[in-house]
Amino acid sequence: MTDKTRIRRLPERGVDDRIVIDAILDEGIVCHAAYVLGDRPVVIPTLYARDGDRLLLHGSTSSGLAKAVRRASPLSVAITLLDGIVIARSGFHSSANYRSAVIHGQGRLLDGEEKSRALDMIVEFLIPGRSTDIRQPTEAERRQTAIIEMDLTEVSAKVRTGGPKDDPEDLGTGVWAGVVPLRTVAGDPVPAVDLEDGVQVPGYLDPYLR
Amino acid sequence: MTDKTRIRRLPERGVDDRIVIDAILDEGIVCHAAYVLGDRPVVIPTLYARDGDRLLLHGSTSSGLAKAVRRASPLSVAITLLDGIVIARSGFHSSANYRSAVIHGQGRLLDGEEKSRALDMIVEFLIPGRSTDIRQPTEAERRQTAIIEMDLTEVSAKVRTGGPKDDPEDLGTGVWAGVVPLRTVAGDPVPAVDLEDGVQVPGYLDPYLR
Repeated sequence: MTDKTRIRRLPERGVDDRIVIDAILDEGIVCHAAYVLGDRPVVIPTLYARDGDRLLLHGSTSSGLAKAVRRASPLSVAITLLDGIVIARSGFHSSANYRSAVIHGQGRLLDGEEKSRALDMIVEFLIPGRSTDIRQPTEAERRQTAIIEMDLTEVSAKVRTGGPKDDPEDLGTGVWAGVVPLRTVAGDPVPAVDLEDGVQVPGYLDPYLR
Repeated sequence: MTDKTRIRRLPERGVDDRIVIDAILDEGIVCHAAYVLGDRPVVIPTLYARDGDRLLLHGSTSSGLAKAVRRASPLSVAITLLDGIVIARSGFHSSANYRSAVIHGQGRLLDGEEKSRALDMIVEFLIPGRSTDIRQPTEAERRQTAIIEMDLTEVSAKVRTGGPKDDPEDLGTGVWAGVVPLRTVAGDPVPAVDLEDGVQVPGYLDPYLR
């Protein structure tokens, strides 16, 4: 094995490993959820949380997604983390480095105590430490919010890492090739205009890490 | 109009303005494309480009997405830019700042000269300046690559900006509220392991801007 093959091993691969899949789900913030409406697909971005072996999708009770679940439409949900642009010496081998997970299955609308717990979990998933700082939802808020549970049984991931995989005949032409790494960074927290004087940024946001 | 209403105007809105929509499409790198397979939806991440009034989706000829287009399945495609986490004093008003566009319609597989031009456009869309530095695709590469065109006729956007919109009774409790801004940043380009000595990073990557 040469250095080149080492770098190039598994540059694009399907992953069936729940540790890898869970790490993708836990790093993501937004998912894209698709459902069927009549004979056509609809995809929307939404917030979510992972709780063990289930995914919790957040939405409005009156959203198309919640209605689709009431109609028993199957769902397909993707979480994608973009890690870089792969710049090869040909368009064909140019690509992206990414980690993505796709979940298929039926959704189930949560209710009652299950829904209350799930609401807290979504806050805590997105902003670890936050849930103890905020008040409980009112009954009206609970009614307006839909939480859709999906089992993480039918789930797979794809991961591409590493540099470009150029054809041997494209090497040595003096054209630059490599990867532009991309990452999502959090800036300094911006206080609300109606925040009282003297309220400090809580430790769990200083910094916000994911 | 107070400072508060100024900040809070249009915090969440549907947008029907092509200038806003095009700006979202032009800033994105990955889209999520959904199609129907049997009676269920499938969503996948993929690279794309906008060219005027059309979207060009990139994929493999043997991908499920290309097969769906051959079966005349309608498509739904979302591009989402996440701009921040909105941290309100209640879970209900906690949210995300984002800009997203969703396109619905039929896909059309490009061929011949149209496909060749579209391949260049996708490279140029992702890495402006790059297409003149790389060789033309071979016939085999062209065969393996599918480019799916969609008209930007059925397209809409949603944008949320600004701080949390808390209920008046939740103010003044000493709990911090505000926004954690998020953005995608490019790191220094990482050369391929097989890059010849002395090849400089091209100007169009130094820095990579989007």
